[in-house]
Amino acid sequence: MEKMRLIIGNKNYSSWSLRPWLAMKVAGLDFDEEIIPLFEPNTKTKLLTYSPVGTVPVLMDGELTVSDSLAILEYIAEKYPEARLLPQNPSDRAKLRSICCEMHSGFFPMRGTLHMNMRKKIPLKIPVDVQANVDRIKNLWQTCRLENASKGPFLFGHFTIADAMYAPVVSRFKTYGIDLGDICEEYSRTILNLPEMQAWYQDALKETWIIKQAEIN
Amino acid sequence: MEKMRLIIGNKNYSSWSLRPWLAMKVAGLDFDEEIIPLFEPNTKTKLLTYSPVGTVPVLMDGELTVSDSLAILEYIAEKYPEARLLPQNPSDRAKLRSICCEMHSGFFPMRGTLHMNMRKKIPLKIPVDVQANVDRIKNLWQTCRLENASKGPFLFGHFTIADAMYAPVVSRFKTYGIDLGDICEEYSRTILNLPEMQAWYQDALKETWIIKQAEIN
Ligand SMILES: N[C@@H](CCC(=O)N[C@@H](CS)C(=O)NCC(=O)O)C(=O)O
Ligand SMILES: N[C@@H](CCC(=O)N[C@@H](CS)C(=O)NCC(=O)O)C(=O)O
Repeated sequence: MEKMRLIIGNKNYSSWSLRPWLAMKVAGLDFDEEIIPLFEPNTKTKLLTYSPVGTVPVLMDGELTVSDSLAILEYIAEKYPEARLLPQNPSDRAKLRSICCEMHSGFFPMRGTLHMNMRKKIPLKIPVDVQANVDRIKNLWQTCRLENASKGPFLFGHFTIADAMYAPVVSRFKTYGIDLGDICEEYSRTILNLPEMQAWYQDALKETWIIKQAEIN
Repeated sequence: MEKMRLIIGNKNYSSWSLRPWLAMKVAGLDFDEEIIPLFEPNTKTKLLTYSPVGTVPVLMDGELTVSDSLAILEYIAEKYPEARLLPQNPSDRAKLRSICCEMHSGFFPMRGTLHMNMRKKIPLKIPVDVQANVDRIKNLWQTCRLENASKGPFLFGHFTIADAMYAPVVSRFKTYGIDLGDICEEYSRTILNLPEMQAWYQDALKETWIIKQAEIN
């Protein structure tokens, strides 16, 4: 069997890449990774050799190419059911997909302002529209944590693809010093203390690329 | 058993609402629908009584609230496997989710310019960034159609949630007279000729609400 290969962007900046990478590591999967540095003159050309979408992440598994972070997460969850990356209960799965899809399709003010930037601490006056996104995210983390507290420290008890979807947000909130409150603070620490998350951070801190477009704050 | 209830926006404009509505109708499900007219002074307040996200569509199934169009599609596909809303083959499912997630998380120039507006025909000079989105969508429709031509007229042969995700785009392209080429033209006709799609159009044409924000072209 050929090893799976995950194509990702710079670890310091590429929030979409972190999602599947983290879930695949937490699931204990063996895969190769390849970094395509973003925002370089030949980035798009390189990306287009992997998939017609021209973005990272991309997962190559034999003949199959999966070209979106959430699609990769669903694929991995299906292929490795023993990793329990989705909750067992259909209604929990529906709630999980609601918040994963909300993340995937929304929070633009937050995403456009609080760029993922793991090596920095940037105190920032948070604009009103970004604050509304922050409040909604804190609200959904809290709801999940209160509902599943007895089952474990993650959003749905054990680690699932929902934690992978929100892990970049945990990092963004850390960088920009977002005030979290007790429950979200504890959840944030759970994610940041994952050995796999720490490994990604270590790699990110070693990178020397600077992407100006992500350093506007 | 209580009937499922789908909360949607104005049929003429609400592209996200069309997705689950169409799939649920094609699957032959029995459900109640309720329209919350968008962009009215009390819209947000009303929406927030259904879900903390404050957007349509929302599906209520007994105690469960599913608050995102793609999450609703996945939920319905899981709950009614006999409707075959997902392909059987794992690698087809991964390809399907790649394009569903690409739609859910992207194509902003297209979505911000070619607003869904079923009652109109609006000839438009297409800006370059919108054209890039149009080209990518045509490319992915074509790829799917060529791969699955022998299995039926939809993206993956039979009707799946991918067709539901792209049905609003079919309508947008019709409104703005987008040049499609043979394969995409045929696919577009397949969607527009669905009796369920025609029923939605009929309802949309009867609506009298005007949303100025969606009528900028
Ligand atoms: N829907 C995609 C979006 C991914 C995406 O936009 N990735 C960015 C980097 S984080 C990218 O590849 N940008 C490169 C470019 O557009 O040239 C996913 O979730 O995987
Ligand atoms: N992620 C959501 C987004 C839905 C969405 O943005 N819906 C729009 C209308 S099509 C809405 O409800 N807008 C009302 C508002 O924001 O007040 C989904 O796919 O269901």
